[in-house]
Amino acid sequence: MSDTPSVRDAVTNGADRFVAELVEWLRIPSISGDPENADDVRRSAEWLAQNLRDTGFPTVEVWQTPGLPAVFAEWPSDDDDAPTVVVYGHHDVQPVTPLELWEHPPFEPTLTSTPTGPRLHARGAADDKGQVFFHTLGVRAHLEATGRSSPAVNLKLLVEGEEESGSPNFAALLAEHRDRLRCDVVVVSDTGMWSRETPSTCTGMRGMTDGQIDFRGPGGDIHSGSFGGAVRNPLTEMSRVLAALHDDDGHVTVDGFYDGVVELTDTERALFATLPYDESSWLANAKSTTAYGETGFTTLERVWARPTAEVNGIWGGYTGAGHKTIVPSEAHAKVSFRLVAGQDPLDIQAKFRDWLARTVPEGIDWAMHYYGPGVRPCLTPLGHPALEAVTRAMATAFDTEVLYTREGGSGPEADLQDVLEAPVVFLGVSLPDDGWHAPNEKVEIPLLLKGAEAAAHLWSDLAITLRA
Amino acid sequence: MSDTPSVRDAVTNGADRFVAELVEWLRIPSISGDPENADDVRRSAEWLAQNLRDTGFPTVEVWQTPGLPAVFAEWPSDDDDAPTVVVYGHHDVQPVTPLELWEHPPFEPTLTSTPTGPRLHARGAADDKGQVFFHTLGVRAHLEATGRSSPAVNLKLLVEGEEESGSPNFAALLAEHRDRLRCDVVVVSDTGMWSRETPSTCTGMRGMTDGQIDFRGPGGDIHSGSFGGAVRNPLTEMSRVLAALHDDDGHVTVDGFYDGVVELTDTERALFATLPYDESSWLANAKSTTAYGETGFTTLERVWARPTAEVNGIWGGYTGAGHKTIVPSEAHAKVSFRLVAGQDPLDIQAKFRDWLARTVPEGIDWAMHYYGPGVRPCLTPLGHPALEAVTRAMATAFDTEVLYTREGGSGPEADLQDVLEAPVVFLGVSLPDDGWHAPNEKVEIPLLLKGAEAAAHLWSDLAITLRA
Repeated sequence: MSDTPSVRDAVTNGADRFVAELVEWLRIPSISGDPENADDVRRSAEWLAQNLRDTGFPTVEVWQTPGLPAVFAEWPSDDDDAPTVVVYGHHDVQPVTPLELWEHPPFEPTLTSTPTGPRLHARGAADDKGQVFFHTLGVRAHLEATGRSSPAVNLKLLVEGEEESGSPNFAALLAEHRDRLRCDVVVVSDTGMWSRETPSTCTGMRGMTDGQIDFRGPGGDIHSGSFGGAVRNPLTEMSRVLAALHDDDGHVTVDGFYDGVVELTDTERALFATLPYDESSWLANAKSTTAYGETGFTTLERVWARPTAEVNGIWGGYTGAGHKTIVPSEAHAKVSFRLVAGQDPLDIQAKFRDWLARTVPEGIDWAMHYYGPGVRPCLTPLGHPALEAVTRAMATAFDTEVLYTREGGSGPEADLQDVLEAPVVFLGVSLPDDGWHAPNEKVEIPLLLKGAEAAAHLWSDLAITLRA
Repeated sequence: MSDTPSVRDAVTNGADRFVAELVEWLRIPSISGDPENADDVRRSAEWLAQNLRDTGFPTVEVWQTPGLPAVFAEWPSDDDDAPTVVVYGHHDVQPVTPLELWEHPPFEPTLTSTPTGPRLHARGAADDKGQVFFHTLGVRAHLEATGRSSPAVNLKLLVEGEEESGSPNFAALLAEHRDRLRCDVVVVSDTGMWSRETPSTCTGMRGMTDGQIDFRGPGGDIHSGSFGGAVRNPLTEMSRVLAALHDDDGHVTVDGFYDGVVELTDTERALFATLPYDESSWLANAKSTTAYGETGFTTLERVWARPTAEVNGIWGGYTGAGHKTIVPSEAHAKVSFRLVAGQDPLDIQAKFRDWLARTVPEGIDWAMHYYGPGVRPCLTPLGHPALEAVTRAMATAFDTEVLYTREGGSGPEADLQDVLEAPVVFLGVSLPDDGWHAPNEKVEIPLLLKGAEAAAHLWSDLAITLRA
């Protein structure tokens, strides 16, 4: 076996090809949230499917949905009693506005060098193409280092195309293909780590539901001199409604919003408190100078374990150069709610609609449109064997202890857990400053390589752990 | 004198030329609020200057300002003791967004026929090019009907180019040309009448100041999953500030906002109450279903005699198709305040800035930019001889009684009154449904002709009234 490389050597040897191919994939602007990019998302799926065939997956299929396609790939183990793993990620990306704030064009991937190694700048570099793609390098390294011709686990990849649009068709897709997706554990690669120095794995994610509020007052824009002060101004009323969404303590005021919320235990709060948290670093990543949120919780508790209401966009009236003194006809806002264990997105949608019905005054016609059914929150039990296997695999890859975190963002993990009836664990290597959903998204290439290493170790570990 | 036509016949004979030339002028998109149209405003001034020369004014000049130019024209009377009149109007127009709501292109003037005569559709048809332009027909009719070769008054026209931008350079322009603008009365043609059946003249106008509020929270857009709930969201904070601008009774909450306000007298409230006011018609003109405003005042009192705060536009965050779950970096709003006698725009600007300083929370960087010094409010004393002359001239033109109103909109009338030290009266014929500042602005041609008739009578009347 002297000609069998270590996992690390195998990953290192494959790094150049890995980066070159990832760059090619990142050139495809697979923005699922903008209908104009629908063909790009389809092209992204076909590109990935072909790449997975070239990697060696014997079965690769593009799965159509009523919306945008997912990619499924399967590489069975030669071992009859091998456990089965589904790896989840997504190939669609966030929009890129405001484009003028990007230092490198979002779909012309650019490599720069840093003291800790190369960095790749592109939309999707971290969220989530880079983290999906390290699995191609990971499985090759796993085979090379073990001398196997098939993985030690039955390896299935499911790479969604609508994650950044709230995964509206994902639960149905899972249900449709439930038999082919049957597995012992789901490994999600769509999250980050605490920091470069403190690798970590995630134990829970927030859910999410979002939508658009439309207000109409006057049937058309009217002169603020002739009519101002004597009719409802939809912008003022929208402001009032959005202002009323939180009380002075930062609690969301929607009736019943906190019903059933799984509160943090003292143990979890203590566990969070052991992390090397530095508020000034967190603020730097948040591009902010001041922390602010729900009274009675720390910053980490607020973003990991508390539900929120956020305004993502507002527009209405005259917004061009100079001024135009009107009472405008319309006001619009995009709002999103992050949810935690115990909350259901459809229930929150109904409660917010009821709250609007009670809050919007006479004289304003309103409509609330939700972007799909939303995403349910997810919690992974501490101590689960698969979670411990991920912890070991990452510790071997990073040569250091691995801690536990949660993730404030949202993905279809709860659907995976519920529909596939399997535990969900997280193998993600992105950093807090990678710029997810923002201009200037980037990823650290050395960390993607560590992700590939960890995956290579994980398949060997799970083959033992889950068989035992 | 049997070959001397009546004023009415002279106006009728000149109507076709009048409409054809007005259409030509309205084709020039003289939007002063948008820097891209600055050359169009200059072209509009040159067009008007040439037309006034063709009309017969011996002196016509384009007056430059640090911004956009005004037009000045002078036609001295042959009578040595003739009183002097300055007619005020403006040749700039409002922006035209949202363009898709216009039934006829705003700068392709379109004539349609109605049971009460032709109607002209164009931006500026009523506000204010149509009402400036009826003075060309008026002075010709005045000369034809009186057989004079010069007007019975020393007639001066001052037609501004920045009225829709808050007249930032107008007071300075008046001061600079104070000697040449010396007069006994100012006639403003930039207002409307109660209705087609109830002609009226205005006794006061609201003042105005407006500007833009800019909020910045995070240094860039950030992921609402990773950071939401733990930093200030500038859209939420902007909503809170704008919501706090009024209390539950519709009073403006800016400290000291009502200091010095000239309250309505019982007599004025009774006078307003004699007008044939129908709330459902008013609401139809306001394109609204429900009246709403400051507690304790009628709709007319609210729009004519009460100061207001209005939000004219808001924008920030993601406003494109689909969704993008961010905490945005920026929020912006355009706000305007309508002011009444006793309030000063610069004082209100300072008070609102102070209020913002007390209201905007830590974590939000903010700036308040005002669009110039604002416009002061104006009130004309009932019973003034010039006001009575306007009333008689309009009554003769319209063959009916003329009532008194106020105007909720704003113009530089207070500057005219204060700098020129002359009383201001109003000769305007626009209707409440003419769509000022809104899509689908139009004007009724028969009413513009009545305006020309009234002007022709007014010069003869003032020559006697003000000499007496």
